[in-house]
Amino acid sequence: MSVNIDEFNIRNLDVSGIDRNAPVGVFDSGVGGLTVAREIMRQLPNEMIVYFGDTARVPYGTKSKDTVIRYSGQIINFLKTKGVKAIVIACNTASALALDEIEKDLDIPIIGVIKPGAKVAVEETRNKKIGIIATEATINSHMYSDVIHAYDESIEVLPKACPLFVSLAEEGWTKDPITYAVAERYLKELQEKDIDTLVLGCTHYPLLRKLIGEVVGEKVTLVNPAYETAISLGRMLDSLGISAVSEDRYRGGMYDFYVSDAAERFKNFANSILPFHIDNIKQINIEEY
Amino acid sequence: MSVNIDEFNIRNLDVSGIDRNAPVGVFDSGVGGLTVAREIMRQLPNEMIVYFGDTARVPYGTKSKDTVIRYSGQIINFLKTKGVKAIVIACNTASALALDEIEKDLDIPIIGVIKPGAKVAVEETRNKKIGIIATEATINSHMYSDVIHAYDESIEVLPKACPLFVSLAEEGWTKDPITYAVAERYLKELQEKDIDTLVLGCTHYPLLRKLIGEVVGEKVTLVNPAYETAISLGRMLDSLGISAVSEDRYRGGMYDFYVSDAAERFKNFANSILPFHIDNIKQINIEEY
Repeated sequence: MSVNIDEFNIRNLDVSGIDRNAPVGVFDSGVGGLTVAREIMRQLPNEMIVYFGDTARVPYGTKSKDTVIRYSGQIINFLKTKGVKAIVIACNTASALALDEIEKDLDIPIIGVIKPGAKVAVEETRNKKIGIIATEATINSHMYSDVIHAYDESIEVLPKACPLFVSLAEEGWTKDPITYAVAERYLKELQEKDIDTLVLGCTHYPLLRKLIGEVVGEKVTLVNPAYETAISLGRMLDSLGISAVSEDRYRGGMYDFYVSDAAERFKNFANSILPFHIDNIKQINIEEY
Repeated sequence: MSVNIDEFNIRNLDVSGIDRNAPVGVFDSGVGGLTVAREIMRQLPNEMIVYFGDTARVPYGTKSKDTVIRYSGQIINFLKTKGVKAIVIACNTASALALDEIEKDLDIPIIGVIKPGAKVAVEETRNKKIGIIATEATINSHMYSDVIHAYDESIEVLPKACPLFVSLAEEGWTKDPITYAVAERYLKELQEKDIDTLVLGCTHYPLLRKLIGEVVGEKVTLVNPAYETAISLGRMLDSLGISAVSEDRYRGGMYDFYVSDAAERFKNFANSILPFHIDNIKQINIEEY
């Protein structure tokens, strides 16, 4: 399978009509993508964000490719009504299943979380053994393997689905002996196969980063695609000349949050992981887009 | 709050046009309701079943009441196209949030899993302290408490959300020290409050029944709403005179399975818990109903 490994695909986009101070649209199947939004806030403090969490249809990890493409298309239609200048797919499943299909027809730049994470993993590995932990759907898509092999066919990619990690992160059991025991069980076979690099291939997993690091030890480099995606987004906006110019805007007005269901639950999780308090989360009917 | 505690609400239904050999429609947000279907297969072997698992929109536990009512309505519309004579809501969240609303306009009998489970818990408790374990949404609906209190206001109802149990059951870690540790943590406060009865208020939990029983000990009676619902369904069909008459039908043709997404994944789970192998699972677009 041939995979496009351009860090971002900006093709022959005409960006002359794009307002550089317009917001970046970020979406995920639910709350997990907030770890990506958080990195963008930290690394690109001038950028406004419109975040959409598809809480009515979460999780994407168990859904088919066609369904994930259709859902992603609806969300991009919604984000475009908010005048976004670029899109970040902050969801590994949607990045794996929908990005290539969606970017064909899109007239603004778009980036997913898989290519930035895979690229850094290839740069980091010394012994050419990279572990990938993710949801079942992301693993089954083989997208991380395909991108890594497009860089270097001789790299051994060792995947492992870790479905319990999402619930453990959402429970807030991020420094817990039970989570430690689950991580030891999930990661044992990757350690036995001597990986030196491990990709946290699900947006919830950075919340367990410290604990996973303790389990695998210092010799294994952890790659956080959320972090790498924010860096990659900055490079993409710069290279297109559409990075936001700071105008000392009121910070509280810079971030907008939309969900497709149950805003209250989203708010609690968001406020447990974001560096500031958010209150105003709007619920929309995503099936109308 | 006043709650109707009739075991089933058969009002003034006109059943004269109902074919007693028509199938029973059973639905759940996903695979969990198979524990209810399994009990119906065991206890009512003459009944045909059309099962629908809303795998495209699972889980319901994090969705709002309006959304769960809308989804349930679509599913009932679909099941009616299959000529079902009665409906079983094999989903605690939908039973809690949607049953009362939906049965108002329905022209066939319907039953949920909460009332049968609550009724038996009231009959079983001696010290009037009943624990309820379920998803966050079922707990927050207060439906088990409301029904139990409608029987006996003096009963103390002690609820506890156990979100990890679903993932643990789906991982198949049903006899596992990690699951045991999680169960001990979740159930500790209920044990300290001296419950003598515990309702397994989520359709996945009967898969952990043995382990939960070991954690809480023999003095605590476990109530399995899946089991009680099958009994209650049999009584409802008998009292309406529409129980199926056995005609030595071919067993393999008695059960039909439909899902809204990813039939393969459903099949694997179904075959791990059902007493026979199923192959033919059809995927439909539930949003068309």
